[in-house]
Amino acid sequence: MRRELEQFSKQELSEFLDDIKVEYLRYCDSGLKLDMSRGKPSPEQLDLGEDLLNSVTSGLDCISSGGIDCRNYGGFWGISELRDLFSDILNVPSDNILIGGNSSLSLMFDTVARAMLHGVAHSERPWSKEEKVRFICPVPGYDRHYRICEVMGIEMIPVPLTGNGPDMDLVEKIVSSDASVKGMWVVPIYSNPTGDIYSEETLSRLAKMDAKANDFTLFVDNAYPLHTLNGTFVQPIDFFSLCNEAGHPDRPIMFSSTSKITFAAGGVSCIAMSKANMETALPFLQAEFICHDKVNQLRHVKVFPDLASVKRRMLEHADILAPKFRIVDQVLHDRLDGFGVASWNKPTGGYFISLVVRKHTAQRVVDLCRNAGLVLTQAGAGFPHDFDPDDRFIRLAPSFPSCDELKSAAELLSIAVLLASCESIIGEKR
Amino acid sequence: MRRELEQFSKQELSEFLDDIKVEYLRYCDSGLKLDMSRGKPSPEQLDLGEDLLNSVTSGLDCISSGGIDCRNYGGFWGISELRDLFSDILNVPSDNILIGGNSSLSLMFDTVARAMLHGVAHSERPWSKEEKVRFICPVPGYDRHYRICEVMGIEMIPVPLTGNGPDMDLVEKIVSSDASVKGMWVVPIYSNPTGDIYSEETLSRLAKMDAKANDFTLFVDNAYPLHTLNGTFVQPIDFFSLCNEAGHPDRPIMFSSTSKITFAAGGVSCIAMSKANMETALPFLQAEFICHDKVNQLRHVKVFPDLASVKRRMLEHADILAPKFRIVDQVLHDRLDGFGVASWNKPTGGYFISLVVRKHTAQRVVDLCRNAGLVLTQAGAGFPHDFDPDDRFIRLAPSFPSCDELKSAAELLSIAVLLASCESIIGEKR
Repeated sequence: MRRELEQFSKQELSEFLDDIKVEYLRYCDSGLKLDMSRGKPSPEQLDLGEDLLNSVTSGLDCISSGGIDCRNYGGFWGISELRDLFSDILNVPSDNILIGGNSSLSLMFDTVARAMLHGVAHSERPWSKEEKVRFICPVPGYDRHYRICEVMGIEMIPVPLTGNGPDMDLVEKIVSSDASVKGMWVVPIYSNPTGDIYSEETLSRLAKMDAKANDFTLFVDNAYPLHTLNGTFVQPIDFFSLCNEAGHPDRPIMFSSTSKITFAAGGVSCIAMSKANMETALPFLQAEFICHDKVNQLRHVKVFPDLASVKRRMLEHADILAPKFRIVDQVLHDRLDGFGVASWNKPTGGYFISLVVRKHTAQRVVDLCRNAGLVLTQAGAGFPHDFDPDDRFIRLAPSFPSCDELKSAAELLSIAVLLASCESIIGEKR
Repeated sequence: MRRELEQFSKQELSEFLDDIKVEYLRYCDSGLKLDMSRGKPSPEQLDLGEDLLNSVTSGLDCISSGGIDCRNYGGFWGISELRDLFSDILNVPSDNILIGGNSSLSLMFDTVARAMLHGVAHSERPWSKEEKVRFICPVPGYDRHYRICEVMGIEMIPVPLTGNGPDMDLVEKIVSSDASVKGMWVVPIYSNPTGDIYSEETLSRLAKMDAKANDFTLFVDNAYPLHTLNGTFVQPIDFFSLCNEAGHPDRPIMFSSTSKITFAAGGVSCIAMSKANMETALPFLQAEFICHDKVNQLRHVKVFPDLASVKRRMLEHADILAPKFRIVDQVLHDRLDGFGVASWNKPTGGYFISLVVRKHTAQRVVDLCRNAGLVLTQAGAGFPHDFDPDDRFIRLAPSFPSCDELKSAAELLSIAVLLASCESIIGEKR
């Protein structure tokens, strides 16, 4: 039966640290070279998509069901089969969906840029003409959302996640009282990295809450709607109707992609908006592109004629991913349980585990791991400006390495957590 | 031997008009349905690209020469093989090239948007913070360039093309005297729609000229570098070196794509910039995308391992396109020569013929054609805000229709030109 490290005497801590250091140095000498920093699919997962490479092989294959030659210009909105498929995936009407290129991140960036240059529905002026623009950022969250805010000069307000989405009391208080709060990032299903699934209550409150800014917009990054790890699919809530019924039809703008369904760099993306937001955006969109890559759109609908076929594929992904998450969880459990120095979630979907360590040790853990050959996501990356005020959160991305590699990685990580915790407690007792 | 319509007596004009009207009405009754409005490749041209659909068919095929798995994230700059290929096509060093998605238009839009939000190298502030931003627009030019300026609130200054590029005396005068002139559109090879090839002198003057704005930028849309119609390739001038030697290394930003080499909606694009411009843009680019579609990049380099292979493909395109341009030219020649009411260019490359009709009749010609079932590019489209002050220019896009269709289309067009000219001369004589 383990005791909490905090309860160790100085002598015990010193001995424990010496033992851990020996283990750690052994790892340093082992020549480990691993990367758990990004949510990259593994080669085995990518191999699942081989059918995509062979689904459109002739000119005849290039004609969409609507009779469009997908090799040529035209089809601004994307082919209807794919709009319908995303409609089923996201529970958003097809008419609200525009198909993009290979990256939903680009669509998010573009949408924020457009808001800065022009505004969204109900904007009195371009956001860049406002004295200040603020976004609510649930934390820990996705670093690339913060990067968009940073380059646009948008101030970020962190709000903690609770397990069912962000602290809604706080969100409501901020949004209803501050007209400079124009936006909020929302990852409603398997939030990156905590795995939060926004509850019906959270989504309902997001739809209904009063906003001081008439053009307050929810940037809903629905990156993982079907990305189950336990074989159960989350039933996506009809969020556009929720917002509509609450009298805020133009509040949500939603994004999704097949980056983690087919190929991480060769998939298709979409944006969903209300009619009014579409109308506001249309002159910009029409100046930006003639159409996106419809050949690749066709490849996707030929492999995925319906939602059921996507779900089958996602279960195959889960078969590859779930054991990896189990291994990391098991090793952390074996090595850390009882010491009282770390906790982590057991996500039911998505791409990440969120590890919470002792205050002021996350950076040290990440550094220790890097020195021994294991690259983790930068400490603090889950927070605006990479600043985790308590220096506690570490994002783990177990998807890419093999199971054997993950075992070593999780061992090393555990050792680093113990080492950093031990140092920190000794420092405090001094 | 024909006489100029202007020389016709009232009686002769009246009889001529009656005859032409009969011909015109016959066309109206014939149920023609044709579109010469956009520079779309024909199905036969798209069929040339069938090899592209079969060039990457397995996971093994997806590994680039640099060892990158093109199905996964990574490869921000694009695969090196493709950067090298565009380098050879454009005569710009590979290091200055970033590969984009399926659309160079999107790269242009993004680049102007980034300048508005942030600026380019040497900008004192974002262009959106300037009191006024002006771009020089050689006319007639590409309507989608103007669309970008319009939505960004950029004022456009039209400058006439001469056959060797724009009137450089005028360009130099404007650029050297007005600090609000921040940009200029340049289509250096087979300019849309006049077919102008910018001469060495023009390019040299563009590189050397004094600019009042330190951050004056040439937006070089190199859409047709290899798009020969006569089998001869234009040797692209090393414009980046020209600008560098002239002390303006950061002046050009160049764009290109394979939209009219492989598939109009499924190709790959690129942007070329100086190091300083790259550095200025980098934080924005990194916030916008992780990487573009490298699977499609690979498809391209497998079909086109070198410049020679692209040139061979472009000669096949020319074999399909050149007869179409000849037919239109021949019919216009047969029907219009000697009447003194129209002139047009015989482009050596590109996608368009620029037809110049009597003052104040272009809109009427386009309307007459539309009423009889032939859609032409909107009159005025070659000018900022769709406003051709003399209402004289009509852009013809002969690439998509079949040769038979083009014969009918050119006949109808000629009839419409004669009809509109006749009406106009009668009106003036009244």
